[in-house]
Amino acid sequence: MSLRRLGERGLIERIRHDSERAPAVGVTVGIGDDTAVLAVTPGAALLATTDLVIEDVHFRRAWASPEDIGWKAMAVNLSDIAAMGGAPRWALIGLAVPADTDAEEIAAFYRGLRAAAAPHGVALVGGDTSRAPAGWLVNVTLLGEHTGTPRLRSSARPGDAIAVTGGLGRSAAGLAVLERGAEEARRRGLAEAVVEALTRAHLRPEARVAEGQWLGRADAVHAMMDCSDGLATDLAHICRESRVGARIQVERIPLGAGVNATARAMGGDALAWATRGGEDYELLVTCDPREVERLARELPQDTGTALSVIGEVEAGGDGVRWLGPEGNAVALGAGYEHFRE
Amino acid sequence: MSLRRLGERGLIERIRHDSERAPAVGVTVGIGDDTAVLAVTPGAALLATTDLVIEDVHFRRAWASPEDIGWKAMAVNLSDIAAMGGAPRWALIGLAVPADTDAEEIAAFYRGLRAAAAPHGVALVGGDTSRAPAGWLVNVTLLGEHTGTPRLRSSARPGDAIAVTGGLGRSAAGLAVLERGAEEARRRGLAEAVVEALTRAHLRPEARVAEGQWLGRADAVHAMMDCSDGLATDLAHICRESRVGARIQVERIPLGAGVNATARAMGGDALAWATRGGEDYELLVTCDPREVERLARELPQDTGTALSVIGEVEAGGDGVRWLGPEGNAVALGAGYEHFRE
Repeated sequence: MSLRRLGERGLIERIRHDSERAPAVGVTVGIGDDTAVLAVTPGAALLATTDLVIEDVHFRRAWASPEDIGWKAMAVNLSDIAAMGGAPRWALIGLAVPADTDAEEIAAFYRGLRAAAAPHGVALVGGDTSRAPAGWLVNVTLLGEHTGTPRLRSSARPGDAIAVTGGLGRSAAGLAVLERGAEEARRRGLAEAVVEALTRAHLRPEARVAEGQWLGRADAVHAMMDCSDGLATDLAHICRESRVGARIQVERIPLGAGVNATARAMGGDALAWATRGGEDYELLVTCDPREVERLARELPQDTGTALSVIGEVEAGGDGVRWLGPEGNAVALGAGYEHFRE
Repeated sequence: MSLRRLGERGLIERIRHDSERAPAVGVTVGIGDDTAVLAVTPGAALLATTDLVIEDVHFRRAWASPEDIGWKAMAVNLSDIAAMGGAPRWALIGLAVPADTDAEEIAAFYRGLRAAAAPHGVALVGGDTSRAPAGWLVNVTLLGEHTGTPRLRSSARPGDAIAVTGGLGRSAAGLAVLERGAEEARRRGLAEAVVEALTRAHLRPEARVAEGQWLGRADAVHAMMDCSDGLATDLAHICRESRVGARIQVERIPLGAGVNATARAMGGDALAWATRGGEDYELLVTCDPREVERLARELPQDTGTALSVIGEVEAGGDGVRWLGPEGNAVALGAGYEHFRE
């Protein structure tokens, strides 16, 4: 059934029906009134973040299914809450699609949203639906709670160790595979498991929510943010906000599994993917250098996710220095910025 | 300067700079980190609402300036908080524009947002910016607080009086003027003051925030919502959510100043504008019939805004009956729904 037949009210009723089946904490009034009414845990700070996800800017319908779009729109917001060390709670979804969109595609979009949200206990509590003149437009606003001290970009201190969770470059490698086509990647000898894992890393990234909460509870962790725009851009944000510099040992940057193999097969640059590709949604932290080895040992034990030390925070606001094995400077461009092409 | 030259970071720095000049209550961390960190007043419920505003769906650049777009995107959200009887507090702004947009237009958009928000003490605490493939896309999420009992759509009771603030049809009348052009309206003899007031009602609606808080404090008020989709559609929502019917005396519906004159001059239907036009952002309430005369007397004294009794809530879920002066049925179509054309 097309949306034109189902109508806005029919759509909202479906979304509401599906949302009410899931148990939700702190939701006094959910979908269906002028606003949601929510009960914030006494003593907790409220976290709020919002992200636009736009067809042909952030994704292409040629390779992202409606379920993928929903998943990723939720995941990028979960990652922002994770980067503060917070607990995600409630989501509001803005969705605009062309009037001839099939209602089943909308249902798949919400399935993707819920599949990303449910493991973290996030409830859909409101939103807005509209016709779009051309492609899909999504806006997710995610609210969270924090009972400790949120970890800011501005809290890095000279002498801090710089570390990153998991592996970088997987999303960009997955995008390279999607752009050339999985068929071509297989023809070039890339293993099926790598093709699947990396395209999934691009289309359905996993936010490091448990890792963010774990790191946010550690007093040794000073600054934290998520690697959404690429390590180079994101680390530059921390340096600017904290008025410090940074020194990165390039060979210590953890490449995600399959990234090197994909770069060889597809003719890409694994280091560029890891530092400038973005959308890996790993967490970037600065922490007390005396504690970093303990954190790097214990985080994997508790969450299954690695923490790799990649450099040090320096006094002074000279930005990021990228160093090779002999201490030589390695040139890297800037990360992704919207509006510049 | 175009956004392509200013870049995303330059844009965010400008927004942040302007936001930090305004005092903000409860903002621990505002624009510039992964999430905003907010302090909800102890004991208050949190209200959350979000609205998409899309070029060529919700507005046309031909007659809405960037400042108008910003104003209206904020006002429609303020109206949702008003309809719960709440106090608006914090806003997150998603804005996507074509890469060749002039930075001055973006600045004007934020000026419009702030001009609508500032009188209500609302702070801009976060957002997202992106390139848009074609037209402007705006998403505003507004958070508010409520220390009493939020007024829901589902709380209407049989026997309640139905009342509406201010006057209806002004936004649709203003749209009719904009569509034909103010020049044509003047040529048809419409007074300049009417042209200005009604186009302003369409482009820069005023949310009834003080009126919503006033009505929300009155125990006699049971259900409340804002007239965003038109009286017919909005009252049908209250009936469905409350499982009641409604009887409206059509001649009691308050037409906004200038609406009749505009309908005559432009060849429109004033009653259709008032019941189906939408976007008036007046408040629709149901209340104890023994108290409604007192409310209608005191609301104007305290806020300057009229409250007109237009009908009664009936037992049973038979929807809305529109009655003429002799109790005869008056046929009215449905209000605006997205996706249907």
